[in-house]
Amino acid sequence: MKSLTSQLPDLHLELPTWVADYLSKASEQTETPEQRMAFVVSLARMNIQHGSGGPFAAAVFRLDTHALVAPGVNLVVSSRCSVAHAEIMALTLAEQVVGSHDLGTTGLPGYELVTSCEPCTMCLGAIVWSGIRQIICGAQETDASEIGFDEGPKPLQWVSDLQQRGITIIQDIQRAEARQVLQDYAKQGGMIYNGRPRTS
Amino acid sequence: MKSLTSQLPDLHLELPTWVADYLSKASEQTETPEQRMAFVVSLARMNIQHGSGGPFAAAVFRLDTHALVAPGVNLVVSSRCSVAHAEIMALTLAEQVVGSHDLGTTGLPGYELVTSCEPCTMCLGAIVWSGIRQIICGAQETDASEIGFDEGPKPLQWVSDLQQRGITIIQDIQRAEARQVLQDYAKQGGMIYNGRPRTS
Repeated sequence: MKSLTSQLPDLHLELPTWVADYLSKASEQTETPEQRMAFVVSLARMNIQHGSGGPFAAAVFRLDTHALVAPGVNLVVSSRCSVAHAEIMALTLAEQVVGSHDLGTTGLPGYELVTSCEPCTMCLGAIVWSGIRQIICGAQETDASEIGFDEGPKPLQWVSDLQQRGITIIQDIQRAEARQVLQDYAKQGGMIYNGRPRTS
Repeated sequence: MKSLTSQLPDLHLELPTWVADYLSKASEQTETPEQRMAFVVSLARMNIQHGSGGPFAAAVFRLDTHALVAPGVNLVVSSRCSVAHAEIMALTLAEQVVGSHDLGTTGLPGYELVTSCEPCTMCLGAIVWSGIRQIICGAQETDASEIGFDEGPKPLQWVSDLQQRGITIIQDIQRAEARQVLQDYAKQGGMIYNGRPRTS
């Protein structure tokens, strides 16, 4: 059959080296939601400063000890991968660390996703499939759409959709700080990449 | 800070070796939607037979020549990655082949996603971000939920949501054949993995 490639492609996603450098020096506390969000918002800001991606970051923490399991930053353009949103990076890397596609499986301690911005349609679905138990959001979806990012065809009742699946959602943690990163990105002329625009 | 890992994890996703073997021998025509779907449904069936994942497959084709750009099969459990749905594999691998996060970017010929089953919430969002121009679906979402797969918090008007973004959607191509793969998987006692169940 007609095929564009003689060899099958593969997908390799890794975080920029500055993330490891930052983590080796980071002294942030992670006991409170505000502290964990402050760490995530720092990652989002650094992702702009290093030119490695969009103004979004996320991280998976253990629910009991609040230890970091995996950080994530937006790598869509740099990794040539439209699914490399911050939440997808943090969730999939956490699954690699834990060794299961299901972070909610029996025998695991339970995990939380902290994200600098409320999830888009894709990440909303990914949150459900990941088995995560709790999500903490910084900026609101309107803060992202205000600078031109499309959140996709997301159900209006997405918060209760998550709650009905036993996922706790905590919103507006450090929202002003998280929103400021988005605003600064737009002011600097950062790339607003989207899929196909809505025409009607 | 407290961290579970001293070294940062990464994510490496690759298709099973049987896919390359099959492609090297495949003589399927790809001119019609039915022919392209028959190829994708074959991949879904082989994914069960080889025990490499769930009963779902997808592929990205060029819109003009109908040449295969990248195939995808569900690899959630085997790759310990909840986002490794067939559509995500096909879209991200196609982006690696093409060298852009946006398959709809100016200068590219335009691409189509053929999927053995209508997309879940996550894949619906991923379709929008990928820049794909057309999707062709085999089984309906109810065919997947009938055997226990949850489609997630998807908007009821998802078809018009895609159309409003300029994405053509063609449904029910080889639906009976695609649905039969799902039925056979369930009959064999195939693993029905889901995220957290809806409780109310």
